[in-house]
Amino acid sequence: MQDKQDQAPTVDGISRRRLLGTAGAVGAGGLVLGAAGGAAGYAAAGPDAPAALSTLGSTQVAWGGEHQPGILQPLQARGHLIAFDLAPGAGRKEAAALLRRWSATAERLMKGEVSDGATAIALDAGPSSLTVTFGFGHSFFSRTGLEKQRPDALDPLPPFSSDRLDRKRSDGDLWIQIGADDALVAFDALRALQKDAGDAARVRWQMNGFNRSPGATAHPMTARNLMGQVDGTNNPKPAESDFDRRIFVPASGEPAWMAGGSYAVVRRIRMLLDDWEKLSVDAQEKVIGRRKSDGAPLTGGTETTEPDLDKVGADGKAVIPADAHARISRPDQNGGAAMLRRPFSYHDGIAADGTPDAGLLFVCWQADPLRGFTAVQRKLDRGDALSSFIRHESSGLFAVPGGPGKGEYVGQRLLEG
Amino acid sequence: MQDKQDQAPTVDGISRRRLLGTAGAVGAGGLVLGAAGGAAGYAAAGPDAPAALSTLGSTQVAWGGEHQPGILQPLQARGHLIAFDLAPGAGRKEAAALLRRWSATAERLMKGEVSDGATAIALDAGPSSLTVTFGFGHSFFSRTGLEKQRPDALDPLPPFSSDRLDRKRSDGDLWIQIGADDALVAFDALRALQKDAGDAARVRWQMNGFNRSPGATAHPMTARNLMGQVDGTNNPKPAESDFDRRIFVPASGEPAWMAGGSYAVVRRIRMLLDDWEKLSVDAQEKVIGRRKSDGAPLTGGTETTEPDLDKVGADGKAVIPADAHARISRPDQNGGAAMLRRPFSYHDGIAADGTPDAGLLFVCWQADPLRGFTAVQRKLDRGDALSSFIRHESSGLFAVPGGPGKGEYVGQRLLEG
Ligand code: HEM
Ligand code: HEM
Repeated sequence: MQDKQDQAPTVDGISRRRLLGTAGAVGAGGLVLGAAGGAAGYAAAGPDAPAALSTLGSTQVAWGGEHQPGILQPLQARGHLIAFDLAPGAGRKEAAALLRRWSATAERLMKGEVSDGATAIALDAGPSSLTVTFGFGHSFFSRTGLEKQRPDALDPLPPFSSDRLDRKRSDGDLWIQIGADDALVAFDALRALQKDAGDAARVRWQMNGFNRSPGATAHPMTARNLMGQVDGTNNPKPAESDFDRRIFVPASGEPAWMAGGSYAVVRRIRMLLDDWEKLSVDAQEKVIGRRKSDGAPLTGGTETTEPDLDKVGADGKAVIPADAHARISRPDQNGGAAMLRRPFSYHDGIAADGTPDAGLLFVCWQADPLRGFTAVQRKLDRGDALSSFIRHESSGLFAVPGGPGKGEYVGQRLLEG
Repeated sequence: MQDKQDQAPTVDGISRRRLLGTAGAVGAGGLVLGAAGGAAGYAAAGPDAPAALSTLGSTQVAWGGEHQPGILQPLQARGHLIAFDLAPGAGRKEAAALLRRWSATAERLMKGEVSDGATAIALDAGPSSLTVTFGFGHSFFSRTGLEKQRPDALDPLPPFSSDRLDRKRSDGDLWIQIGADDALVAFDALRALQKDAGDAARVRWQMNGFNRSPGATAHPMTARNLMGQVDGTNNPKPAESDFDRRIFVPASGEPAWMAGGSYAVVRRIRMLLDDWEKLSVDAQEKVIGRRKSDGAPLTGGTETTEPDLDKVGADGKAVIPADAHARISRPDQNGGAAMLRRPFSYHDGIAADGTPDAGLLFVCWQADPLRGFTAVQRKLDRGDALSSFIRHESSGLFAVPGGPGKGEYVGQRLLEG
């Protein structure tokens, strides 16, 4: 197993920033840059290298390059997911113009420039690690006459027995993920991109998420979710030799317009927190197979210790139960299936039934969703101890092309290919 | 006018922390303390004194004292408002026991101690400026047989012609305001306090809010709302001689159990952002009477310059229009009426009509709501240029007693008086 305490390597004279809660470091195409003028504003942020507070605002993520932003960057404190359908009558031409507008806006806002004056909400704030990521859904291709360019990987996900999906909050022709460490910066980007849509596309659904604030904890520990679990520990790390192959479509991959791209599976997963919180900590830990306090496997050690899956307790039972979530989701239990999980938590108040409308905006990234998400979810669907405490309420699958080249817009190779 | 650049004075050897976006400094009973051990962890936070990132987590607000926390403290990045009704059959005894449980939990969590293990969500995080504030609604007093103790100030607010109130999301026997700079810390407190309610009280409504993250901007400027306006500029400042008299019930005030307390008016105010963003910046600025970029009055200067209300432009019209929000809401236009506005923004995605369900969780504090909120809202209701762009959707009025003494719980003087 990868040692998460590895020193961050240096690329092009700019220190790589360690990923909080996801993978190990910011890869090529996802550099975290300083704001307005470079080195001085650069945030050497990370659990073991606390940055000055003001770098929260000034931290800037690069636009363009090999991959789109928002995949390898540290989890941000705020997130918006929004899906659009092309308007009736809008086709390939309108979509191309829209993606051109969107790309220009994303590039500008990620630099910390303000959105159009009348919309402008976050005036005077820095980019605050803003990332904007664009994806295409299955239905996009028939609406634009681009069926021949549709990747097989976009074939609809199979139904799972535990699915309770709201179709109105699922799928969509186009998808945008927005993340930032400041709520107004994220909301400003959301409004600006929505305005750009103009007559070309209509909002299908929109969701809000969050993660903890940088600096809330001094522990060099991965993120937590709303069940209180350390979440993200065993994500694939960019330093691993098979990372790129698992997460990104290779340069020589199919279809060509997806080179450097990735597939995002988006699941709104409700947590049944009233039930969950009735369990003892002990029972909660058996559901996952890891300790709640520090994320260490129940067989001992620290968060990064490899679990001893064969260990049997004094009671003759496996210490990490056979149906523990972190046992059965492992690549070695699923033919090597792996994905990069980069979620937001959500909390939309109280649902009609009086329980909290809260959980995980589960977003995972992989080169092949069939060998990533689908393989693992098939297994979880059959026998995950966590199943009784969660409910998949919506679903999306989006093709997220590589980062745009200089002067290019996202998806240009698809739309003008 | 108070100069906002004043150096923070020192109280009891602990520097007062400047209020971001509300009033001038943290008053007595609202000291911001360092975490676990004092000075080292103390956050000298504020726009002109950026703190180290890790102080976001370690910043601790004092429990107890003259006033409850959450009134004078800087706006936090996350907030929850939750109202409860006492359960059928629950009376004064059950309410007293509940307030005792709630106070103990609030005190513990504000120190950064974790909530009960099974609920615990924010394990390993610092208190992150957590504040918990408790209030009593009009209906509380009849349910507990305490009508004689009910302050006249809790008489229902008058109806306003522009009200579009959802009664299910208004009022309530009991009200809690939670604020913290970390989302998981705030959510953990919400869950813990809800759990404490047990069989004694049921959730009536619950809302989530946010403000910008500390450090997102380097400008020494007040907060912004989702219309992009600098908001909070002309709040009363603790250093002003009439501040205490305007905001807090005096020690000798009526009823006695409200000494050191304050009345909170809570209005969920939807912003009609699609309409608002169709205005030019110029038109937006005329609606408020202040510049969008920096909050300065349209008659010139900086954010803290006094507006010149008599100034007439080349076109013969008042530079600050007669119906400008920041003109007609002024104390000098309302018989001296003043309140301390300490809001959160909210954004709950897309409403049924396709527009953003976003706006202001307007919370304002005053010694007398009739001479504060009601006086001003009557005026705004008749002729505020902002009216076309906002909609009051819910309303609450709560009596928030002073801070508990040592070993006391909030409201003890009412419930055991
Ligand atoms: C609300 C729903 C979920 C919660 C609360 C949750 C929580 C967790 C936790 C606490 C861990 C252990 C720490 C870690 O390695 O990250 C974990 C691991 C993992 N989860 Fe989930 N999870 C959820 C849903 C899913 C779903 C839907 C999938 C994919 C279909 C998934 C795939 C994985 C994988 C692949 C691992 C890493 C296993 C390993 O390699 O050790 N999880 N999850
Ligand atoms: C979404 C609704 C509202 C928005 C967007 C809004 C926005 C603003 C803005 C931008 C200012 C100028 C800067 C400042 O001094 O803070 C202001 C001032 C003020 N507002 Fe509002 N406001 C809203 C609702 C209300 C309500 C409901 C009241 C009370 C009934 C109110 C009372 C005041 C007062 C007292 C001032 C200060 C006036 C002065 O002394 O100069 N506002 N508001």
